Amino acid sequence: MKRSLAEFFGTFWLVFGGCGSAMYAAAFGDVGIGLLGVSLAFGLTVVTMAYAIGHISGCHLNPAVTLGLWAGGRFAARDIPAYIAAQLLGALVAAAALYFIASGAPGDVAGLASNGFAERSPGSYNLVSGFSIELILTLGFLVVIIGATDARAPAGFAPLAIGLCLTLIHLISIPVTNTSVNPARSTGPALMEWLALGDGGATGQLWLFWVAPLVGAVIAGFAYRHFFKADN
Amino acid sequence: MKRSLAEFFGTFWLVFGGCGSAMYAAAFGDVGIGLLGVSLAFGLTVVTMAYAIGHISGCHLNPAVTLGLWAGGRFAARDIPAYIAAQLLGALVAAAALYFIASGAPGDVAGLASNGFAERSPGSYNLVSGFSIELILTLGFLVVIIGATDARAPAGFAPLAIGLCLTLIHLISIPVTNTSVNPARSTGPALMEWLALGDGGATGQLWLFWVAPLVGAVIAGFAYRHFFKADN
Amino acid sequence: MKRSLAEFFGTFWLVFGGCGSAMYAAAFGDVGIGLLGVSLAFGLTVVTMAYAIGHISGCHLNPAVTLGLWAGGRFAARDIPAYIAAQLLGALVAAAALYFIASGAPGDVAGLASNGFAERSPGSYNLVSGFSIELILTLGFLVVIIGATDARAPAGFAPLAIGLCLTLIHLISIPVTNTSVNPARSTGPALMEWLALGDGGATGQLWLFWVAPLVGAVIAGFAYRHFFKADN
Amino acid sequence: MKRSLAEFFGTFWLVFGGCGSAMYAAAFGDVGIGLLGVSLAFGLTVVTMAYAIGHISGCHLNPAVTLGLWAGGRFAARDIPAYIAAQLLGALVAAAALYFIASGAPGDVAGLASNGFAERSPGSYNLVSGFSIELILTLGFLVVIIGATDARAPAGFAPLAIGLCLTLIHLISIPVTNTSVNPARSTGPALMEWLALGDGGATGQLWLFWVAPLVGAVIAGFAYRHFFKADN
Repeated sequence: MKRSLAEFFGTFWLVFGGCGSAMYAAAFGDVGIGLLGVSLAFGLTVVTMAYAIGHISGCHLNPAVTLGLWAGGRFAARDIPAYIAAQLLGALVAAAALYFIASGAPGDVAGLASNGFAERSPGSYNLVSGFSIELILTLGFLVVIIGATDARAPAGFAPLAIGLCLTLIHLISIPVTNTSVNPARSTGPALMEWLALGDGGATGQLWLFWVAPLVGAVIAGFAYRHFFKADN
Repeated sequence: MKRSLAEFFGTFWLVFGGCGSAMYAAAFGDVGIGLLGVSLAFGLTVVTMAYAIGHISGCHLNPAVTLGLWAGGRFAARDIPAYIAAQLLGALVAAAALYFIASGAPGDVAGLASNGFAERSPGSYNLVSGFSIELILTLGFLVVIIGATDARAPAGFAPLAIGLCLTLIHLISIPVTNTSVNPARSTGPALMEWLALGDGGATGQLWLFWVAPLVGAVIAGFAYRHFFKADN
Repeated sequence: MKRSLAEFFGTFWLVFGGCGSAMYAAAFGDVGIGLLGVSLAFGLTVVTMAYAIGHISGCHLNPAVTLGLWAGGRFAARDIPAYIAAQLLGALVAAAALYFIASGAPGDVAGLASNGFAERSPGSYNLVSGFSIELILTLGFLVVIIGATDARAPAGFAPLAIGLCLTLIHLISIPVTNTSVNPARSTGPALMEWLALGDGGATGQLWLFWVAPLVGAVIAGFAYRHFFKADN
Repeated sequence: MKRSLAEFFGTFWLVFGGCGSAMYAAAFGDVGIGLLGVSLAFGLTVVTMAYAIGHISGCHLNPAVTLGLWAGGRFAARDIPAYIAAQLLGALVAAAALYFIASGAPGDVAGLASNGFAERSPGSYNLVSGFSIELILTLGFLVVIIGATDARAPAGFAPLAIGLCLTLIHLISIPVTNTSVNPARSTGPALMEWLALGDGGATGQLWLFWVAPLVGAVIAGFAYRHFFKADN
């Protein structure tokens, strides 16, 4: 229960901070934070929460992380459903809060920083490019997560390494898919765009942002366990 | 006494560095640091002072932090007044110094990076949006502060996590309220705009930047203590 | 074998992340990450992998690092060929993946962020300037690598110091040579530009990005060992 | 001797990296790193060298730091001259190297990122503003340096705190004086502008960038020792 609450709040923080910085500040006049600022914001949501609640739930905040850690032999299968449910709920509440705050500004709310490919990709990258980059980056993300929390890695630095890895991932791929590597982060804004704005475009593409990250994460988990075990 | 002096100087540093970067460098020609640079500056004032004086006063630099730590059972009620007084004084002296230096440049001093909502919000967000985001972000800030200084968190990293959390908070919310989450940071520039520039607009909105952060901080303190205690 | 696989994947990550951020995101409309974002991305590939696989292979990801560590007395000569082969292969596969993803966007693929001097230097710096800066920066890079992993340096921080050093190096020199300090990072994109785009310009200049970094690295290795040994 | 060599190379690195990023990359087309990138570069020169050579010389790289540490009771008076001489030499050699590389690009070398006030201030801030901000920021810098290396502060983090403090200082004050807080960093480029470009403007203003930082540093050293001693 305590762990689910931590996952709920942490994922709320990730979506509120990451997507919020994109919605409110990315393109704000001449002083907007741009994609670099958004990349930093996503990463810092993980850095901050990993130090704050890592000792409570492990601070996954992401179904791909939960599944990848299971594949890597670090997480019990029976805890997966509760973690993923808490993550989805946190992402959905964050998207609702972002919409509520955005509607207090002049003009219509343009969107909630949802993910997409083809005509919904910021740089018009097609389905295959989007699928490939989401799979590759989630695979690398999980290698970093599992490697940095390996008992042989320096203690205490994993939250920095993992959060800054999410920053790196965004620096590469926002133009391609708006960057997911996290099905919960994709689902919250997509559902809220559908419910609040009547725009079902992102929900129609949600499948990719579940399949590609989960496949990449599970490959990484098994591969790390197989190739990089201490006793190899 | 030693602790109050540390809080005074640390809060001076926070306001001088954070608001100073906004006043002098944010929109400086084609090479200005933008909201991303200001966000980094605010965070780094905390990172640097938390390593420098954390061992002296705990480095609150913020009445909301002081009150939230009390709510979380980490700070004695009898020390609250001296801490808040030192923080307010530091913020006021910093705003005076910023005004003094700014008046040595051509043109009038436009403002001291005060906080605001509605017609004083950088992005014209209304009162409800401003109140909501200040409450939510201060709540998250205190969760990070209390969590990262929990005995179960890795030792030594709390200053990084807390300072970078303030960076994250600014990345999200400068367009909404110019970002406070800190009543002292709001009060120093607001009073100095009134005294030195004859502009009482920010002082008229100061109440929100006391109420919302303090409510968010106290909720976080009680919630962390209740839900995330080690023996839960 | 385990170590070669780690070097392969790590160098893949360095080139995919660093060159990918340059190709996809550096100049993306009004919100592009610019050279600052690319500098951060290159550095974070090293920060993340050094925490993730440093305990497996040492995380060189760079023939100049491998050779410099040998000169510094930290790496066995017999392991050099396998390391460099794995690094080159990782860089080549990364460049291929970057090309594949880029070809899923509208328009032709303009290049793969290869290095160059004279007419191929982003700022038209000549051969001597390019050679000098690559040599100087690789020399400094190796001093940081060897110094930060010295037994007298604080434990655990080397990945941060080394990765952020690569960020610093890019902040200085992207306009001069597009920044190499890493023969593998230069070779992968250059070869792929030749194979996939039919543009042999970068391969024709590859020699400089082998010679200058390797010379700088070897000087640093011998110098550190000679001047800064603990028993000096 | 070993320590002087470390100070020489470290100060070379600080000026080469910090001023080099300003000269080559700050205003590079649409993707220039701006003042934010230059601020980061200056800070990272210190982060990287402090981890690399901190265990050899303490990594001052700055006469104000050397004098401030003496005032704080952390450095022997008899070592001051050798340290300052090595720092000045490193800064001068770095400025020469920067000039040499810059002259390999089209067009004249515009300057070497020297410091200035009044008509030489980037934002036309007058002498009093320049003196005040240099004094205040160096004072704060030394509080961070002495505080973060206090035995009561977390071990190992001082290089991060100190380097990021230099980043913060630049985020505030580049428009005011181009940011010194370091007489060696001011002297190298000023002398080289005079020798190589025949422009004596920066040397004529050098006195301020010796007096203000040294006064601020010495105040900080004495104040920290007096007010924040452990046994207070």
